[in-house]
Amino acid sequence: MKLIVAIVQDKDSAKLLSDLVDHNFRATKLATTGGFLKSGNTTFMIGTEEIRVNKALEIIKRNCQAREQYVAPVSPIGGNADSYIPYPVEVEVGGATVFVLPVDQFYHF
Amino acid sequence: MKLIVAIVQDKDSAKLLSDLVDHNFRATKLATTGGFLKSGNTTFMIGTEEIRVNKALEIIKRNCQAREQYVAPVSPIGGNADSYIPYPVEVEVGGATVFVLPVDQFYHF
Amino acid sequence: MKLIVAIVQDKDSAKLLSDLVDHNFRATKLATTGGFLKSGNTTFMIGTEEIRVNKALEIIKRNCQAREQYVAPVSPIGGNADSYIPYPVEVEVGGATVFVLPVDQFYHF
Ligand code: NI
Ligand code: NI
Ligand code: NI
Repeated sequence: MKLIVAIVQDKDSAKLLSDLVDHNFRATKLATTGGFLKSGNTTFMIGTEEIRVNKALEIIKRNCQAREQYVAPVSPIGGNADSYIPYPVEVEVGGATVFVLPVDQFYHF
Repeated sequence: MKLIVAIVQDKDSAKLLSDLVDHNFRATKLATTGGFLKSGNTTFMIGTEEIRVNKALEIIKRNCQAREQYVAPVSPIGGNADSYIPYPVEVEVGGATVFVLPVDQFYHF
Repeated sequence: MKLIVAIVQDKDSAKLLSDLVDHNFRATKLATTGGFLKSGNTTFMIGTEEIRVNKALEIIKRNCQAREQYVAPVSPIGGNADSYIPYPVEVEVGGATVFVLPVDQFYHF
Protein backbone atom coordinates (compact mmCIF):
# COMPACT_ATOMS: atom_id res chain seq x y z
CA MET A 1 0.00 0.00 0.00
CA LYS A 2 1.12 3.54 -0.80
CA LEU A 3 -0.34 6.94 0.03
CA ILE A 4 -0.04 9.40 -2.83
CA VAL A 5 -0.19 13.08 -1.86
CA ALA A 6 -0.73 15.27 -4.93
CA ILE A 7 -0.97 19.07 -4.90
CA VAL A 8 -2.68 20.32 -8.05
CA GLN A 9 -4.34 23.48 -9.34
CA ASP A 10 -8.00 23.99 -8.42
CA LYS A 11 -8.92 24.27 -12.09
CA ASP A 12 -7.63 20.73 -12.75
CA SER A 13 -9.09 19.09 -9.66
CA ALA A 14 -12.59 18.21 -10.96
CA LYS A 15 -11.36 16.40 -14.06
CA LEU A 16 -8.60 14.69 -12.05
CA LEU A 17 -11.14 13.41 -9.52
CA SER A 18 -13.45 12.20 -12.28
CA ASP A 19 -10.62 10.37 -14.06
CA LEU A 20 -9.47 8.77 -10.78
CA VAL A 21 -13.00 7.54 -10.07
CA ASP A 22 -13.33 6.14 -13.60
CA HIS A 23 -10.28 4.01 -12.85
CA ASN A 24 -11.44 2.87 -9.41
CA PHE A 25 -9.11 4.96 -7.30
CA ARG A 26 -10.31 6.31 -3.98
CA ALA A 27 -9.28 9.89 -3.27
CA THR A 28 -9.75 12.43 -0.50
CA LYS A 29 -9.54 16.16 -1.24
CA LEU A 30 -8.08 18.41 1.43
CA ALA A 31 -8.88 22.10 1.59
CA THR A 32 -5.54 23.73 0.88
CA THR A 33 -5.05 27.41 1.52
CA GLY A 34 -1.83 27.79 -0.42
CA GLY A 35 -0.36 25.24 -2.72
CA PHE A 36 3.37 25.35 -2.75
CA LEU A 37 3.02 29.11 -2.61
CA LYS A 38 0.65 29.48 -5.52
CA SER A 39 -2.95 30.22 -4.58
CA GLY A 40 -5.87 28.09 -5.67
CA ASN A 41 -4.46 24.62 -5.17
CA THR A 42 -6.04 21.41 -3.93
CA THR A 43 -4.37 18.48 -2.18
CA PHE A 44 -5.47 14.94 -3.01
CA MET A 45 -4.67 11.92 -0.86
CA ILE A 46 -4.93 8.70 -2.84
CA GLY A 47 -4.47 5.33 -1.16
CA THR A 48 -3.53 2.54 -3.55
CA GLU A 49 -1.85 -0.83 -3.85
CA GLU A 50 1.77 -0.59 -4.98
CA ILE A 51 0.97 -2.19 -8.32
CA ARG A 52 -1.37 0.66 -9.28
CA VAL A 53 0.88 3.59 -8.31
CA ASN A 54 2.08 4.12 -11.88
CA LYS A 55 -1.48 4.20 -13.17
CA ALA A 56 -2.39 6.86 -10.61
CA LEU A 57 0.69 8.91 -11.55
CA GLU A 58 -0.25 8.66 -15.23
CA ILE A 59 -3.76 9.95 -14.44
CA ILE A 60 -2.39 12.85 -12.38
CA LYS A 61 0.07 13.74 -15.13
CA ARG A 62 -2.45 13.72 -17.99
CA ASN A 63 -4.93 15.90 -16.10
CA CYS A 64 -2.60 18.32 -14.36
CA GLN A 65 0.66 18.62 -16.25
CA ALA A 66 1.96 22.19 -16.60
CA ARG A 67 1.14 23.56 -20.05
CA GLU A 68 0.98 26.83 -21.96
CA GLN A 69 -2.41 28.39 -22.52
CA TYR A 70 -3.45 31.43 -24.54
CA VAL A 71 -5.47 33.90 -22.52
CA ALA A 72 -7.62 36.50 -24.26
CA PRO A 73 -6.58 40.06 -23.42
CA VAL A 74 -8.66 41.84 -20.82
CA SER A 75 -10.23 45.08 -22.01
CA PRO A 76 -8.51 48.04 -20.31
CA ILE A 77 -11.75 49.56 -19.02
CA GLY A 78 -10.89 51.36 -15.82
CA GLY A 79 -7.27 50.34 -16.27
CA ASN A 80 -4.25 51.86 -17.93
CA ALA A 81 -4.72 51.84 -21.72
CA ASP A 82 -0.96 52.25 -22.20
CA SER A 83 -0.36 48.77 -20.82
CA TYR A 84 -3.15 47.15 -22.83
CA ILE A 85 -1.99 44.13 -24.85
CA PRO A 86 -4.42 43.67 -27.79
CA TYR A 87 -3.58 40.01 -28.50
CA PRO A 88 -3.82 36.74 -26.56
CA VAL A 89 -0.93 36.06 -24.19
CA GLU A 90 0.59 32.73 -23.28
CA VAL A 91 0.50 31.77 -19.60
CA GLU A 92 1.56 28.58 -17.84
CA VAL A 93 -1.29 26.72 -16.13
CA GLY A 94 -1.54 23.43 -14.30
CA GLY A 95 1.33 21.52 -12.76
CA ALA A 96 1.35 18.97 -9.96
CA THR A 97 3.67 18.21 -7.06
CA VAL A 98 3.40 14.55 -6.09
CA PHE A 99 4.77 12.56 -3.14
CA VAL A 100 4.43 8.78 -2.93
CA LEU A 101 4.61 7.81 0.75
CA PRO A 102 5.26 4.35 2.18
CA VAL A 103 2.47 2.92 4.36
CA ASP A 104 3.19 0.56 7.28
CA GLN A 105 -0.37 -0.58 7.86
CA PHE A 106 -3.67 -0.02 6.09
CA TYR A 107 -7.18 -0.66 7.43
CA HIS A 108 -10.73 -0.23 6.30
CA PHE A 109 -13.18 -0.48 9.21
CA MET B 1 6.80 7.29 16.17
CA LYS B 2 3.99 6.76 13.67
CA LEU B 3 1.61 9.16 11.98
CA ILE B 4 -1.90 7.75 11.67
CA VAL B 5 -4.05 9.31 8.94
CA ALA B 6 -7.72 8.37 9.41
CA ILE B 7 -10.57 9.43 7.13
CA VAL B 8 -13.91 9.11 8.94
CA GLN B 9 -17.48 10.31 8.55
CA ASP B 10 -18.26 13.78 9.93
CA LYS B 11 -20.99 12.33 12.14
CA ASP B 12 -18.45 10.13 13.94
CA SER B 13 -15.71 12.73 14.30
CA ALA B 14 -16.81 14.40 17.56
CA LYS B 15 -17.04 11.18 19.55
CA LEU B 16 -13.81 9.89 18.00
CA LEU B 17 -11.97 13.06 19.02
CA SER B 18 -13.40 12.88 22.53
CA ASP B 19 -12.39 9.21 22.93
CA LEU B 20 -8.88 9.95 21.61
CA VAL B 21 -8.48 12.80 24.12
CA ASP B 22 -9.72 10.58 26.97
CA HIS B 23 -6.86 8.23 26.13
CA ASN B 24 -4.21 10.92 25.82
CA PHE B 25 -3.83 10.93 22.06
CA ARG B 26 -3.10 14.16 20.25
CA ALA B 27 -5.03 14.64 17.04
CA THR B 28 -5.32 17.26 14.31
CA LYS B 29 -8.46 17.48 12.20
CA LEU B 30 -8.08 18.52 8.57
CA ALA B 31 -10.94 20.07 6.64
CA THR B 32 -11.69 17.48 4.00
CA THR B 33 -13.86 18.34 1.05
CA GLY B 34 -14.44 14.82 -0.16
CA GLY B 35 -13.63 11.72 1.77
CA PHE B 36 -12.71 8.89 -0.49
CA LEU B 37 -15.51 10.10 -2.74
CA LYS B 38 -18.20 10.20 -0.10
CA SER B 39 -19.17 13.67 1.08
CA GLY B 40 -19.04 14.73 4.68
CA ASN B 41 -15.77 13.20 5.81
CA THR B 42 -13.08 14.41 8.15
CA THR B 43 -9.38 13.53 8.15
CA PHE B 44 -7.57 13.04 11.45
CA MET B 45 -3.80 13.06 11.83
CA ILE B 46 -2.72 11.30 15.02
CA GLY B 47 0.93 11.19 16.03
CA THR B 48 1.78 8.39 18.43
CA GLU B 49 4.53 6.16 19.73
CA GLU B 50 4.64 2.78 18.01
CA ILE B 51 3.53 0.99 21.16
CA ARG B 52 0.22 2.86 21.22
CA VAL B 53 -0.75 2.41 17.55
CA ASN B 54 -3.00 -0.56 18.30
CA LYS B 55 -4.83 1.37 21.01
CA ALA B 56 -5.46 4.24 18.55
CA LEU B 57 -6.74 1.80 15.91
CA GLU B 58 -9.07 0.23 18.48
CA ILE B 59 -10.48 3.67 19.34
CA ILE B 60 -10.98 4.54 15.66
CA LYS B 61 -12.68 1.22 15.03
CA ARG B 62 -15.10 1.39 17.95
CA ASN B 63 -16.22 4.91 17.09
CA CYS B 64 -16.29 4.76 13.31
CA GLN B 65 -16.82 1.19 12.13
CA ALA B 66 -19.32 0.81 9.28
CA ARG B 67 -22.69 -0.35 10.62
CA GLU B 68 -26.31 -0.62 9.59
CA GLN B 69 -28.72 1.97 10.92
CA TYR B 70 -32.50 2.25 10.65
CA VAL B 71 -33.61 5.57 9.31
CA ALA B 72 -37.20 6.76 9.91
CA PRO B 73 -39.08 7.38 6.67
CA VAL B 74 -39.35 10.96 5.55
CA SER B 75 -42.92 12.17 5.14
CA PRO B 76 -43.67 12.70 1.44
CA ILE B 77 -44.88 16.30 1.88
CA GLY B 78 -44.10 18.07 -1.33
CA GLY B 79 -42.62 14.88 -2.72
CA ASN B 80 -43.94 11.97 -4.70
CA ALA B 81 -46.36 9.94 -2.54
CA ASP B 82 -45.97 7.00 -4.91
CA SER B 83 -42.37 6.51 -3.81
CA TYR B 84 -43.12 6.93 -0.08
CA ILE B 85 -41.79 4.06 2.05
CA PRO B 86 -43.89 3.94 5.26
CA TYR B 87 -41.38 1.96 7.36
CA PRO B 88 -37.80 2.55 8.59
CA VAL B 89 -35.06 1.65 6.09
CA GLU B 90 -31.63 0.27 6.79
CA VAL B 91 -28.66 2.33 5.62
CA GLU B 92 -24.95 1.86 6.11
CA VAL B 93 -23.27 4.62 8.11
CA GLY B 94 -19.75 5.16 9.39
CA GLY B 95 -16.63 3.49 8.15
CA ALA B 96 -13.01 4.56 8.36
CA THR B 97 -10.01 4.39 6.02
CA VAL B 98 -6.79 4.33 8.02
CA PHE B 99 -3.13 4.63 6.99
CA VAL B 100 -0.30 4.14 9.48
CA LEU B 101 2.74 6.02 8.15
CA PRO B 102 6.35 5.61 9.24
CA VAL B 103 8.01 8.72 10.70
CA ASP B 104 11.74 9.40 10.32
CA GLN B 105 11.99 12.20 12.85
CA PHE B 106 9.60 13.77 15.33
CA TYR B 107 9.95 17.11 17.13
CA HIS B 108 7.97 19.23 19.51
CA PHE B 109 9.31 22.79 19.67
CA MET C 1 13.25 13.60 -0.53
CA LYS C 2 11.34 14.11 2.71
CA LEU C 3 7.88 15.45 3.45
CA ILE C 4 7.78 17.60 6.57
CA VAL C 5 4.36 17.94 8.22
CA ALA C 6 4.35 20.80 10.74
CA ILE C 7 1.38 21.82 12.89
CA VAL C 8 1.85 25.38 14.17
CA GLN C 9 -0.25 28.14 15.72
CA ASP C 10 -2.17 30.38 13.29
CA LYS C 11 -0.47 33.45 14.71
CA ASP C 12 2.95 32.10 13.70
CA SER C 13 1.99 30.84 10.25
CA ALA C 14 2.48 34.05 8.22
CA LYS C 15 6.03 34.67 9.40
CA LEU C 16 6.89 30.98 9.09
CA LEU C 17 5.68 30.95 5.47
CA SER C 18 7.60 34.12 4.68
CA ASP C 19 10.81 32.75 6.22
CA LEU C 20 10.41 29.45 4.33
CA VAL C 21 9.96 31.32 1.03
CA ASP C 22 13.01 33.48 1.74
CA HIS C 23 15.03 30.27 1.97
CA ASN C 24 13.55 28.69 -1.17
CA PHE C 25 11.34 26.11 0.49
CA ARG C 26 8.03 25.19 -1.07
CA ALA C 27 5.17 24.80 1.36
CA THR C 28 1.47 23.98 1.24
CA LYS C 29 -0.85 25.15 4.01
CA LEU C 30 -3.75 22.90 4.95
CA ALA C 31 -6.87 24.24 6.62
CA THR C 32 -6.79 22.61 10.04
CA THR C 33 -9.83 22.67 12.26
CA GLY C 34 -8.11 21.58 15.43
CA GLY C 35 -4.41 21.39 15.93
CA PHE C 36 -3.45 18.68 18.33
CA LEU C 37 -6.46 19.71 20.33
CA LYS C 38 -5.67 23.40 20.53
CA SER C 39 -7.78 25.62 18.32
CA GLY C 40 -6.33 27.98 15.76
CA ASN C 41 -3.60 25.84 14.25
CA THR C 42 -2.32 25.49 10.70
CA THR C 43 -0.68 22.47 9.08
CA PHE C 44 2.21 23.00 6.67
CA MET C 45 3.45 20.36 4.26
CA ILE C 46 7.00 21.07 3.12
CA GLY C 47 8.71 18.90 0.53
CA THR C 48 12.47 19.06 0.61
CA GLU C 49 15.67 17.24 -0.25
CA GLU C 50 17.13 15.35 2.69
CA ILE C 51 20.11 17.68 2.89
CA ARG C 52 17.88 20.67 3.65
CA VAL C 53 15.67 19.07 6.34
CA ASN C 54 17.72 20.56 9.18
CA LYS C 55 17.46 24.04 7.68
CA ALA C 56 13.67 23.69 7.44
CA LEU C 57 13.49 22.49 11.07
CA GLU C 58 15.61 25.46 12.17
CA ILE C 59 13.21 27.84 10.39
CA ILE C 60 10.16 26.19 11.97
CA LYS C 61 11.77 26.32 15.41
CA ARG C 62 12.79 29.98 15.25
CA ASN C 63 9.34 31.11 14.10
CA CYS C 64 7.10 28.86 16.14
CA GLN C 65 8.88 27.71 19.30
CA ALA C 66 6.73 27.79 22.44
CA ARG C 67 7.51 30.90 24.48
CA GLU C 68 6.11 33.00 27.31
CA GLN C 69 4.38 36.24 26.44
CA TYR C 70 3.00 39.01 28.63
CA VAL C 71 -0.60 39.82 27.89
CA ALA C 72 -2.05 43.19 28.97
CA PRO C 73 -4.99 42.81 31.36
CA VAL C 74 -8.43 43.19 29.86
CA SER C 75 -10.52 45.92 31.43
CA PRO C 76 -13.34 44.37 33.50
CA ILE C 77 -16.10 46.35 31.76
CA GLY C 78 -19.18 44.21 31.85
CA GLY C 79 -17.23 41.54 33.70
CA ASN C 80 -16.59 40.71 37.32
CA ALA C 81 -14.38 43.42 38.85
CA ASP C 82 -13.47 41.06 41.68
CA SER C 83 -11.54 38.83 39.29
CA TYR C 84 -9.78 41.72 37.54
CA ILE C 85 -5.99 41.32 37.42
CA PRO C 86 -4.50 44.82 37.07
CA TYR C 87 -1.09 43.73 35.72
CA PRO C 88 0.14 41.86 32.61
CA VAL C 89 -0.03 38.07 32.83
CA GLU C 90 2.34 35.55 31.31
CA VAL C 91 0.85 33.04 28.85
CA GLU C 92 2.52 30.40 26.69
CA VAL C 93 2.14 30.96 22.94
CA GLY C 94 3.49 29.20 19.88
CA GLY C 95 4.80 25.68 19.73
CA ALA C 96 5.10 23.29 16.81
CA THR C 97 4.58 19.56 16.32
CA VAL C 98 6.72 18.31 13.44
CA PHE C 99 6.85 14.97 11.62
CA VAL C 100 9.52 14.21 9.00
CA LEU C 101 8.13 11.53 6.67
CA PRO C 102 10.09 9.35 4.26
CA VAL C 103 9.14 9.71 0.58
CA ASP C 104 9.40 6.78 -1.85
CA GLN C 105 8.96 8.78 -5.05
CA PHE C 106 8.69 12.46 -5.86
CA TYR C 107 7.44 14.05 -9.09
CA HIS C 108 6.82 17.49 -10.45
CA PHE C 109 4.64 17.41 -13.56
NI1 NI D 1 -8.20 4.45 -18.86
NI1 NI E 1 -10.36 3.10 27.63
NI1 NI F 1 18.84 32.72 6.51
